[in-house]
Amino acid sequence: MPQPHPELGLDHKTSLLSGRDLWSTESAEDAGIPSLVLCDGPHGVRRQLAEADHLGVHSSEPATCFPPAVSLASSWDPDLVRRLGEALGREARALGVDVLLGPGVNIKRSPLCGRNFEYFSEDPLLSGVLGAAHVEGVQSQGVGASVKHFAANNQETDRMRVSSDVDERTLREIYFPAFERIVEQARPATVMCSYNRVNGVHAAENHWLLTQVLREEWGFDGLVVSDWGAVGDRVAALLAGTDLEMPGNGGGTDAEVAAAVDRGDLDRAVVDTAVGRLRALAERVRARTAPGEADPGAQHALAREVAADCLVLLKNRERTLPLTPTGRVALIGEFAETLRYQGGGSSHVNATRVDSALGQLRAQLPDAHVDFAPGYDITGQADAVRLREQAVRLAEQADIAVLVVGLRESDESEGFDREHIELPEDQVDLIHVVAERARRTVVVLLNGGVVSLEDWHDEVDAVVEAWLPGQAGGGAIADVLTGRVNPSGRLAETIPFRLADTPSYLNFPGEQGHVRYGEGVMVGYRYYETADVPVRYPFGHGLSYTTFEQSGFQVSGTGPDTAKATVTVTNTGDRFGKHVVQIYVSAPRRPVSSPARELRGFAKVALAPGESTSVEIDLDRRAFAYWDITRDGWAVAAGEYQVQLGENAHDVVAHATLHLTGDELAKPLTMDSTVGEWFGHPAVGPALTEAMMAGMTEEQAAAAAENADAMRMIQSMPMRQFLGFLPAPLPEEFLERLMGMSAVSA
Amino acid sequence: MPQPHPELGLDHKTSLLSGRDLWSTESAEDAGIPSLVLCDGPHGVRRQLAEADHLGVHSSEPATCFPPAVSLASSWDPDLVRRLGEALGREARALGVDVLLGPGVNIKRSPLCGRNFEYFSEDPLLSGVLGAAHVEGVQSQGVGASVKHFAANNQETDRMRVSSDVDERTLREIYFPAFERIVEQARPATVMCSYNRVNGVHAAENHWLLTQVLREEWGFDGLVVSDWGAVGDRVAALLAGTDLEMPGNGGGTDAEVAAAVDRGDLDRAVVDTAVGRLRALAERVRARTAPGEADPGAQHALAREVAADCLVLLKNRERTLPLTPTGRVALIGEFAETLRYQGGGSSHVNATRVDSALGQLRAQLPDAHVDFAPGYDITGQADAVRLREQAVRLAEQADIAVLVVGLRESDESEGFDREHIELPEDQVDLIHVVAERARRTVVVLLNGGVVSLEDWHDEVDAVVEAWLPGQAGGGAIADVLTGRVNPSGRLAETIPFRLADTPSYLNFPGEQGHVRYGEGVMVGYRYYETADVPVRYPFGHGLSYTTFEQSGFQVSGTGPDTAKATVTVTNTGDRFGKHVVQIYVSAPRRPVSSPARELRGFAKVALAPGESTSVEIDLDRRAFAYWDITRDGWAVAAGEYQVQLGENAHDVVAHATLHLTGDELAKPLTMDSTVGEWFGHPAVGPALTEAMMAGMTEEQAAAAAENADAMRMIQSMPMRQFLGFLPAPLPEEFLERLMGMSAVSA
Repeated sequence: MPQPHPELGLDHKTSLLSGRDLWSTESAEDAGIPSLVLCDGPHGVRRQLAEADHLGVHSSEPATCFPPAVSLASSWDPDLVRRLGEALGREARALGVDVLLGPGVNIKRSPLCGRNFEYFSEDPLLSGVLGAAHVEGVQSQGVGASVKHFAANNQETDRMRVSSDVDERTLREIYFPAFERIVEQARPATVMCSYNRVNGVHAAENHWLLTQVLREEWGFDGLVVSDWGAVGDRVAALLAGTDLEMPGNGGGTDAEVAAAVDRGDLDRAVVDTAVGRLRALAERVRARTAPGEADPGAQHALAREVAADCLVLLKNRERTLPLTPTGRVALIGEFAETLRYQGGGSSHVNATRVDSALGQLRAQLPDAHVDFAPGYDITGQADAVRLREQAVRLAEQADIAVLVVGLRESDESEGFDREHIELPEDQVDLIHVVAERARRTVVVLLNGGVVSLEDWHDEVDAVVEAWLPGQAGGGAIADVLTGRVNPSGRLAETIPFRLADTPSYLNFPGEQGHVRYGEGVMVGYRYYETADVPVRYPFGHGLSYTTFEQSGFQVSGTGPDTAKATVTVTNTGDRFGKHVVQIYVSAPRRPVSSPARELRGFAKVALAPGESTSVEIDLDRRAFAYWDITRDGWAVAAGEYQVQLGENAHDVVAHATLHLTGDELAKPLTMDSTVGEWFGHPAVGPALTEAMMAGMTEEQAAAAAENADAMRMIQSMPMRQFLGFLPAPLPEEFLERLMGMSAVSA
Repeated sequence: MPQPHPELGLDHKTSLLSGRDLWSTESAEDAGIPSLVLCDGPHGVRRQLAEADHLGVHSSEPATCFPPAVSLASSWDPDLVRRLGEALGREARALGVDVLLGPGVNIKRSPLCGRNFEYFSEDPLLSGVLGAAHVEGVQSQGVGASVKHFAANNQETDRMRVSSDVDERTLREIYFPAFERIVEQARPATVMCSYNRVNGVHAAENHWLLTQVLREEWGFDGLVVSDWGAVGDRVAALLAGTDLEMPGNGGGTDAEVAAAVDRGDLDRAVVDTAVGRLRALAERVRARTAPGEADPGAQHALAREVAADCLVLLKNRERTLPLTPTGRVALIGEFAETLRYQGGGSSHVNATRVDSALGQLRAQLPDAHVDFAPGYDITGQADAVRLREQAVRLAEQADIAVLVVGLRESDESEGFDREHIELPEDQVDLIHVVAERARRTVVVLLNGGVVSLEDWHDEVDAVVEAWLPGQAGGGAIADVLTGRVNPSGRLAETIPFRLADTPSYLNFPGEQGHVRYGEGVMVGYRYYETADVPVRYPFGHGLSYTTFEQSGFQVSGTGPDTAKATVTVTNTGDRFGKHVVQIYVSAPRRPVSSPARELRGFAKVALAPGESTSVEIDLDRRAFAYWDITRDGWAVAAGEYQVQLGENAHDVVAHATLHLTGDELAKPLTMDSTVGEWFGHPAVGPALTEAMMAGMTEEQAAAAAENADAMRMIQSMPMRQFLGFLPAPLPEEFLERLMGMSAVSA
């Protein structure tokens, strides 16, 4: 760890550790520490203008608005995400940004979370793999990334005070792994701690979280920056491991730090270490040479390519899509003209341009008639009935109606959570009447958080989930509708039938300062598959215009608790397409309750018609492990693991069994071990039975044999208590010998 | 509190506070403390013979086996339960028992709990009202009751070590109220602490539980006795408030107590207080005069009367029941001959006699042919196919088939939990074939824990849930089948479609020493009604052979937060019957998430044909209150409460709205209050807005007005952080004045 220049005074040092203003840090040029610029965000650079509003949520320098994480995740394509990260990095450099705040890798615990559009998935593996690719891409351009928000920040309601009350296994298996993978694989320059409390302690002041887990266990060597305004007690935050407080507060908390050092409450070395990390960060991001350049046209083209690969074709009855090149198309929905393409809040980008679906579709279908009607009104001020009637007339005259509907900006945003998952009522009404009157109906959805399709799903012929597709989304939608791009997105989150079916339904967003993660590890598809709750579309679902065959699925061990899965994928259709191989693992009975299956590997492959490829996916130890609170670590239980090839999280198309010896999980017996554990021990049990029978009269022994049922009743009694019920005491030395025996074999 | 005789030595005192043996305490006759006899159980006296097996689970003096709590609760009749309590008390006196261990009032959190047959209900009000009646009945005979198991003892798996991890609101609203009501209303002689840990601390050593809540808040003035073998650390247990350790352990832990006093780790006054409570108990139970007498014949008759009122008629297509007095009945099922009538474990009673359904039915239908076939074999050793064929032949020849099926003793018991809720497979197969071949089919169920009916429910004509009906259950079943008794039982627990639908499904029985009460207050019907999960039969369901009309439902306030509901019930059918009026309350939006409805009052009425009665049910403050963790107490939110007359927990037949002013829940604003709370305050909000606008340039003010959406985004930001984002600082005095303003109005 490099040390700061020795002659820096304490006041100067502490001032380096809080912002100079909203978006930059203080400098100590003669100590080699320049002022650094940190900016939102994960899908576009939000470099604020000098005269920006002071809440910092609006105008900024124009920048490319790429698809937000909700879209990106549906690509299931780390290479694509890495390229997007590189593009973001280029643009950040061009705009003088040193650290680009993102990616957001919090798990989508509930579809209601207002910030879900900024997060990848309900699955930690998918989130981690894509998040790592994002960080690698950004940082390849000499710009630091900031993985956020660490940790258990899964809602907006009361986000700055609420305590996420969540057990450690759930943290380790669901809410931590994306961060862990990114830290270990991509070495992010910074990690941003979250606003919320984790089990009662603010993330910014949580030493276990920021120091024990993040640094000591995972080896994080970068800087921990607070979320903007997340620091309540600056001294406690520094002690816990929050190096940099953002934004600046005019030096108020710097004085608190200095006073704490003077009082002896805070070791000066803590300040020095944090300053050292800041200098290391500066050296890392300033090691690049010239400021970068980013060509807006090329960036926009990439944004379109990425977006097209993120769209998910949910339903396509009788090849409704792609559209034919000729004929009459009724394009309906104000969002087709005024694209909804990003979410609200700190990640809001001032786009360089925005393509409409209407313009792009007309351009791609020169031989067709593409008529447009708004159908509904985003502001809610127009005459809904008149708009609807106009749209229906258009639909009746067309060969096919394409409805572009979705959530309005005011329906979802950072800062608050939704209260339901329905589309606006007027849009649902519109779908009903159009679907009834049109020959065929396609629905294109624009939304950052999942919406229910129940009200109208069965009435329409095709559904494209376009999420929030970024500024080039209009082109991407046209690409998929016309078949210029074959859709290859897969759901990164389940689409449930109804909100009440979601696993956090009873416990979201909590109450009175606490949110109980009552569903534990059973988040997303883990819940639906385990509790056998039907959903509209499962995690991993997505259709294509071509067909794929998966064959020759095999799994072979590569070590005591590792394996590889291989499968051959063939494009059996008539056009180029991409397929996502999904590998799930189903664990045997073990000391913890297990989800029915968990995603443990995936790969996206691109194939020409008739082309085949063999895909090999490594399954590491963690693919089989659970977090064992009694061992304070990962453990692999012995038994038969089923490795499954899933079309999605619900439909398993092939599986193979893998026997693992597992870790030695047996613990030495103690007097607190139960009767069941004592008698169930392979070596100790028989010895104990023999000794007990020896101490009994014949009559007692006969009664005991008869009372075998009673043994089941007392199986959960600790040995210590059980001994009190015995007719003849067992000698202490004997019991100790048995305990010793169990310790040897354990 | 009476003090023990002063000259008792410490050793003698400590010896009084642990058992002499399995079922009695030590005495100090010259100090006026006799040896007391404590015996199981809740539905029959289990006075152990001297030569009993030492695990204490079998032979005991013959005693009347009344219906266990699972049946009793279905009566919804506190008067009936009180009479049963009196009978138990009589028999306990006759057998020389001073304290009769029971009732068990733990809440049925999961249908899997092996001991559910010993507990009343999934609802705390029903459990508490019936539990109090039970205690009043027992204690009216000069015998002490022991309310158990305190607290959060809702499973058998790992019951002596597992920690029930449950938040305080859930304890206060679901798991405590039955105990609380019984303590306050019935003044039980003893409370038995449970085996498990509550939030990490063993119940026996839980000072908060046994002293703060039980004694200081609820005013319990009796003795706390440990569950048998529940004490791990005797000194910690005494300090927490466990007065008496049971059973005896040869003085081992007495020595620990004496040593702790000698070391100064334990105040001698703690021992004196506990001894004082023991003496008070002795004085109370020995205050009675002569030993009681209990006539076995009269007791058995009462057991039958009680059992008949506990049976629940679940389904009765086209008046299949009652049976006609003539014709041919095929009575099928080994349980019809060998009644299953009680559960396994410490409550197992050595019945004075057992009536079979077969014998009783034949006796009651002298003009009918009642043929019998076992149909299945309890031991699983007979030829199932042959038994089934024989039964089907009988069914084909009869006018009606009555199938008596249920769980075997080995399927459920104290000491372990079930893993599913299905009937034995051979019995399900039997129902299918009989239902297919018989003209009409009635199913009578015998089971301590709820079973799923899904596999066969729609194939049969009538279903009677007879639970475990006690030793006179055969007669009670015959009474209801023939119509000698009109069934009036109502479900005290939901019958779900499937195990996976139950609210604790993800969190039962926990893992690695912890069970998370992840569903919080959403237990039983509270969950099904709130999450809109369909069930087979809702809580409160039960049919009758007559019909009732409920009319004139009215609710009127009787105080600021109390009300009474009145309704007129008329027997509109042609035979005598009993009806249960059920009053539920649905709360308005409040600071905590609320169940869709909660049972807040009920009354059972008996009516002759054509007879009417007006029923008045008081709703006290608690009917509208929730436990507020921020106030550490009960609170009533202001708003519109819907008071509902329910046919059961799902079907509301009438409702009325009640406006309550509620408690003043607003808290003074602080710098940790959020922006939303500040601006939302009726007095403070406008003043703050005005001041902020005053500090802005015109341009800034216009921008702020335009950015109203942004305000929603930052509504959850604490004021402290928000101030840092403002263009012009707000004077500290001004903010303090506003906080003062909020404190006055709060």
